[in-house]
Amino acid sequence: METTNKTKAEFARSECPVANFLDLLGDKWTLLIVRDLLLGKRRYGEFARSEEGIPTNLLAARLKRLEQAGIVQRQVYCEVPVRHEYHITDKGRELRVVVDAMAAWANENIPGVRVLPDYDG
Amino acid sequence: METTNKTKAEFARSECPVANFLDLLGDKWTLLIVRDLLLGKRRYGEFARSEEGIPTNLLAARLKRLEQAGIVQRQVYCEVPVRHEYHITDKGRELRVVVDAMAAWANENIPGVRVLPDYDG
Repeated sequence: METTNKTKAEFARSECPVANFLDLLGDKWTLLIVRDLLLGKRRYGEFARSEEGIPTNLLAARLKRLEQAGIVQRQVYCEVPVRHEYHITDKGRELRVVVDAMAAWANENIPGVRVLPDYDG
Repeated sequence: METTNKTKAEFARSECPVANFLDLLGDKWTLLIVRDLLLGKRRYGEFARSEEGIPTNLLAARLKRLEQAGIVQRQVYCEVPVRHEYHITDKGRELRVVVDAMAAWANENIPGVRVLPDYDG
């Protein structure tokens, strides 16, 4: 699929990059899945077991949206029965800057949060 | 009010800094208000007129939450009738790193978005 620039009317809310970022990734769950991907998690069950307890219907919907956006790539790791892993793409890995900035702000300004473990993105 | 560290059970979802950031600021509107504050907007009507068209009930609720979190400070600028301005605090200004990282990712990965104007934060 060729990517073309949208006209102003085709944007959901505005041409603002922040608004468009939030339209794609701005909710309470999506960036936690990205965090998990950056931490090396790949399987549905791993995301589902994260301590925030994402509802499975939301997890499935968010993974699908991340795949459509080219942020994760789905790969078969077991043929019978068919099982998939979710691999973060280069485009997804670039979200590390955003996730790290959020973590740094929270570590500075929200008392008691833990520091994220190292991850290699 | 003294700020004390929470125990694990007091966190809404987990002790993860990203989860706590998202619990406070992770929705489709709050960081757009922060963007507007960084761009120098201060008055209710200015936020309401931004092109994304935030519903006024959400705007009022989000400003209140931002004030409670110490990200904006409300100041009277007119006594009769009483009118308030919302000033971003130092803690709020530190969110610029997050907003800038979102804008940079969107400029790189979402075709057609415009570049944010310069702002002095």
